[in-house]
Amino acid sequence: MSAMIKVGVVGASGYTGLELIKIILKHPIFELSLVATSEGGGRVDTLHPSLASICNMSVIDANVEQIARGCELVFLALPHTASMGYVKDLVALGVKVVDLSADYRLDLKTYESYYVPHTDRENLKIAAYGLPELNQEQICESSLVANPGCYPTASLLAILPFMKYLQKDSPIIIDAKTGVSGSGKKLTNESHFVHINENVFAYKPFEHRHAPEIAQMLLVDESRVKFVPHLLPLTRGMLCSIYVSVDGDFDPVEVLREFYAKSPFVRIYEQPVSAKQSAGTNFCDIYATRSANTLFIASSIDNLLRGASSQAVVNANLMMGLDEDVGIPDIAYVP
Amino acid sequence: MSAMIKVGVVGASGYTGLELIKIILKHPIFELSLVATSEGGGRVDTLHPSLASICNMSVIDANVEQIARGCELVFLALPHTASMGYVKDLVALGVKVVDLSADYRLDLKTYESYYVPHTDRENLKIAAYGLPELNQEQICESSLVANPGCYPTASLLAILPFMKYLQKDSPIIIDAKTGVSGSGKKLTNESHFVHINENVFAYKPFEHRHAPEIAQMLLVDESRVKFVPHLLPLTRGMLCSIYVSVDGDFDPVEVLREFYAKSPFVRIYEQPVSAKQSAGTNFCDIYATRSANTLFIASSIDNLLRGASSQAVVNANLMMGLDEDVGIPDIAYVP
Amino acid sequence: MSAMIKVGVVGASGYTGLELIKIILKHPIFELSLVATSEGGGRVDTLHPSLASICNMSVIDANVEQIARGCELVFLALPHTASMGYVKDLVALGVKVVDLSADYRLDLKTYESYYVPHTDRENLKIAAYGLPELNQEQICESSLVANPGCYPTASLLAILPFMKYLQKDSPIIIDAKTGVSGSGKKLTNESHFVHINENVFAYKPFEHRHAPEIAQMLLVDESRVKFVPHLLPLTRGMLCSIYVSVDGDFDPVEVLREFYAKSPFVRIYEQPVSAKQSAGTNFCDIYATRSANTLFIASSIDNLLRGASSQAVVNANLMMGLDEDVGIPDIAYVP
Amino acid sequence: MSAMIKVGVVGASGYTGLELIKIILKHPIFELSLVATSEGGGRVDTLHPSLASICNMSVIDANVEQIARGCELVFLALPHTASMGYVKDLVALGVKVVDLSADYRLDLKTYESYYVPHTDRENLKIAAYGLPELNQEQICESSLVANPGCYPTASLLAILPFMKYLQKDSPIIIDAKTGVSGSGKKLTNESHFVHINENVFAYKPFEHRHAPEIAQMLLVDESRVKFVPHLLPLTRGMLCSIYVSVDGDFDPVEVLREFYAKSPFVRIYEQPVSAKQSAGTNFCDIYATRSANTLFIASSIDNLLRGASSQAVVNANLMMGLDEDVGIPDIAYVP
Repeated sequence: MSAMIKVGVVGASGYTGLELIKIILKHPIFELSLVATSEGGGRVDTLHPSLASICNMSVIDANVEQIARGCELVFLALPHTASMGYVKDLVALGVKVVDLSADYRLDLKTYESYYVPHTDRENLKIAAYGLPELNQEQICESSLVANPGCYPTASLLAILPFMKYLQKDSPIIIDAKTGVSGSGKKLTNESHFVHINENVFAYKPFEHRHAPEIAQMLLVDESRVKFVPHLLPLTRGMLCSIYVSVDGDFDPVEVLREFYAKSPFVRIYEQPVSAKQSAGTNFCDIYATRSANTLFIASSIDNLLRGASSQAVVNANLMMGLDEDVGIPDIAYVP
Repeated sequence: MSAMIKVGVVGASGYTGLELIKIILKHPIFELSLVATSEGGGRVDTLHPSLASICNMSVIDANVEQIARGCELVFLALPHTASMGYVKDLVALGVKVVDLSADYRLDLKTYESYYVPHTDRENLKIAAYGLPELNQEQICESSLVANPGCYPTASLLAILPFMKYLQKDSPIIIDAKTGVSGSGKKLTNESHFVHINENVFAYKPFEHRHAPEIAQMLLVDESRVKFVPHLLPLTRGMLCSIYVSVDGDFDPVEVLREFYAKSPFVRIYEQPVSAKQSAGTNFCDIYATRSANTLFIASSIDNLLRGASSQAVVNANLMMGLDEDVGIPDIAYVP
Repeated sequence: MSAMIKVGVVGASGYTGLELIKIILKHPIFELSLVATSEGGGRVDTLHPSLASICNMSVIDANVEQIARGCELVFLALPHTASMGYVKDLVALGVKVVDLSADYRLDLKTYESYYVPHTDRENLKIAAYGLPELNQEQICESSLVANPGCYPTASLLAILPFMKYLQKDSPIIIDAKTGVSGSGKKLTNESHFVHINENVFAYKPFEHRHAPEIAQMLLVDESRVKFVPHLLPLTRGMLCSIYVSVDGDFDPVEVLREFYAKSPFVRIYEQPVSAKQSAGTNFCDIYATRSANTLFIASSIDNLLRGASSQAVVNANLMMGLDEDVGIPDIAYVP
Repeated sequence: MSAMIKVGVVGASGYTGLELIKIILKHPIFELSLVATSEGGGRVDTLHPSLASICNMSVIDANVEQIARGCELVFLALPHTASMGYVKDLVALGVKVVDLSADYRLDLKTYESYYVPHTDRENLKIAAYGLPELNQEQICESSLVANPGCYPTASLLAILPFMKYLQKDSPIIIDAKTGVSGSGKKLTNESHFVHINENVFAYKPFEHRHAPEIAQMLLVDESRVKFVPHLLPLTRGMLCSIYVSVDGDFDPVEVLREFYAKSPFVRIYEQPVSAKQSAGTNFCDIYATRSANTLFIASSIDNLLRGASSQAVVNANLMMGLDEDVGIPDIAYVP
């Protein structure tokens, strides 16, 4: 195996870090050469006990030089605003980066209005938005890819095929439903079992930071995107139910099939899709139907995989000249 | 307690039948005098083992004369189209009826286009639609009340206060989320634990029979109601997320507060409501917020109580001249 | 209603505090006259939003004199070791106390070896152990009742009827299964939805503080009680599966029926009992069967009700000269 | 890949059939050459929609000659008593068989007392019991392997290391806890979401058919095995909590480590194991601790994988001369 490519994971303690490690360990070309957290210390299988007897690598603290020595490409699974601190130096040292945070997803003005002042404006300009179905060519040539959020991934893949049919200036309503792993390991009232079991509720309606990311990639004004996320008693899984006003005579399933004819990781269904059927995979499953001028689109993804880690590895594949599907999980956990 | 009113439950084997029995057993004025199923036989506590040592009444088969002898008022918790067979004779014999099926909810034409030919057109004309906040006076004077479905209850209570602000002919989008008890005890693939656990999906988008019921009570054309129900891994609970286009300058929470100032079973919140907070009660909890001309309304009910059995007992209270809140559950199961 | 008895709840912010409030609000003789937390402030319906429009009493901070002025009896739903600080003065001021902590459940030596030095030894001597089926007479005459823990309640009620059949010195194996509400509102890794959903595990096998409480009330040596609790993805509910070696010729269901012939809150079943059938009630449901000399007993309770708050109100009823079942929840949440 | 070995799956419609297909599709040496159900018809991805775009093979009806032409080895995922009908002819035609039913697990007398008269006594004599840790040599040489049930797998792996320490004739108490997928896709009251959600109960205590299988492999009298399975609201996963009386001075974790020093698919833990940590893998995770003479052992497996399909593929690997871990899932679904 002379052709193995050394890759690292920085920010390995969270769910997306774990998913990255799981995929890389089974990847036929990538070799996991470095695992880091902000504090360092311990081993991978103490950080994630389910990896006992699978991976006992040491966990180091994240140091740019060490990363550059050990990796051709690195995945940053860090909190928003923490990524910026690494990317600048890593790119300067010639390391390719897939950044799972929001730091390189938005244009400068939007980013700064939702987050903090940006400290790496140069790289912000050159980062590719890592939605392979939208942006494959740019990703292939880029050394810095901003991996999309889970909500934008499921929303964009559902809406993009229908943009030309949308009524001018009409609202784009996204009723998103997601499991608890999307909020990470942090202990909050909302993630307490007793609070979310036998429950469902909207949170931050119309206020969520992902709406501007969706608007930007749809090339529409942010005010058109009406985004309402809901928390459900699921561990994994995301279903976006989208409602838009359309004109024209078209069969929505046919539109989807044509649009994604060459996309290996989008599946089109003639029946409503379920969150469970895509959990464990990189697939985005989509269904659409219409009632007069109202179009309903439902898209399902695994929020931790297609919404984060497996999409990140697809991007890494493309950046390293591999086929996009090398080592990517495609068989659902069902049942 | 000379003033006890004898009531019966016909169709006692299902979840709504059980909830009716539970409420009546604790009701200070109603006395459970008759429990019937279509087959009859056994006792209440064999039909519902959780009622052991609480209620050991015999379960009889449903006979109109026997009902009329034993009850001043009867609840029919029967499948759609089965109710019609009883109502005609019961009303003729002077028994008051709260019917939980769809048989008397719709006008003749709509009913027959969604269900079957109607066999009791006379009573269909006189039945009151049992949404107390909309129709209290008519309910009080009626001897036949058609108890609303769970979806229409949660949808109507959320939308009615905003009707005057709706943009003309604009779609009324209802993204409903409900637990498995709404489909009853029937064994289906969708109710199998392995299918719905860790899952969520839309079913019959734009096709559900409850849309015309909602349209009729909103006095809008059926084509405006865009209704998409979703099944969630909950036992009880329903959350309706509603999206409408509005004009005018108003504070949605204030609109709700004014509209329901005198309604004891509607609670208005300034934060998104959750399914769990109303489970176990007759409350409909409502929250609303807007982003420019798009209004988001979320309403939460217990699908078996406010969506069926406790609302039926409120209607019965009104029909018998009692206060609407007598014996009605108002404390949630939380936690 | 001249006969209303004023009662208070101190430690109202947790799950058991909420359940106490819910029961007292519906109790025909008790009147909720005081609600306190250690910090005080706010109202009951901000502490517990599901009680909106039900109870808007102010929450005060816990002050012994104020409690004594306002209440004939007070429930202490405080953490272990915090209760002792109140009981001494409350009893001196003539207030009856039902203490839900462990502070008065164990003899001095056992308590101090599992917890901390005891600071109210006088009252420890006079406290009654509040398991009504075991101790009714003593409870009736006591002004201080130590309410049993949930594990001891379910275990003792299952084992007590069979004590005379147990093989001498044989181990008493208790495999307990409980939901997450038993650990309270505290945010821990174990209560994070993602950790416990789709999961089950033993915790602290053979080490749990409730084993000595069980041993003490069974009058056996602590070393015989082999107690292993397991955490399950439930909100409420507890099932104890008990395995003991027995001698003699007896029908276990008959033994149970005789033992509990006069106990309104124990139900005996001929089929295995389920956690769900008792959730929402004060019932302890018990089933037993044997295979040669091994006896299997399964007991089911609601950990927050029979395992804490409703049993506390039963004790309060007895202490105030009422029938034990006054105002006690007896209809399960099923479905 | 000239060396691909053609294998088939008969009985592909159930959960274990699906898991077999999923593993074989990713196996580097096995090629899925035939998929059959008793009725035949359709395609794999209509039978299992989550396999859309992964496997569109036709599903045939099960015919012995066709199987023999197309496969070197076949997995039978058929109901008990249906397998016997195939095995006789398949073995005669030189096809190797891994049978997931109970038909070849028990000796003749035990089988016939729990099931039906056996119709293939010759092969019953030569079948190897497919627990690799116990029986590897025999499996390697066998052309017919009886794959163990999920309960015996988790129980035997936990108990076998301690057999020499068990008190003579003492009961072996197995409190097993399992998810709903163990009962298959069949629609029953117990698998209805509303019944099992927020619930837990024992079923058929002391009566389950797996107890004699456990006794037989432990070489103890059936009457010593006290087996009580419990159903939990999980999709996958099994935890066996085992209680035995032991003599001698030993460290239980050390005993486990030594016993399984060369077993790649058993992991030993110093903390209680959880069902979730092994779900998605072929691992059996084991923990043990003792209190005086009572030993508590907890073992965790994925009931559909180590309890059925992945263990079947391990057996197939051994039968075909491959290393046991080729193509076997070893990374858990966590989170």
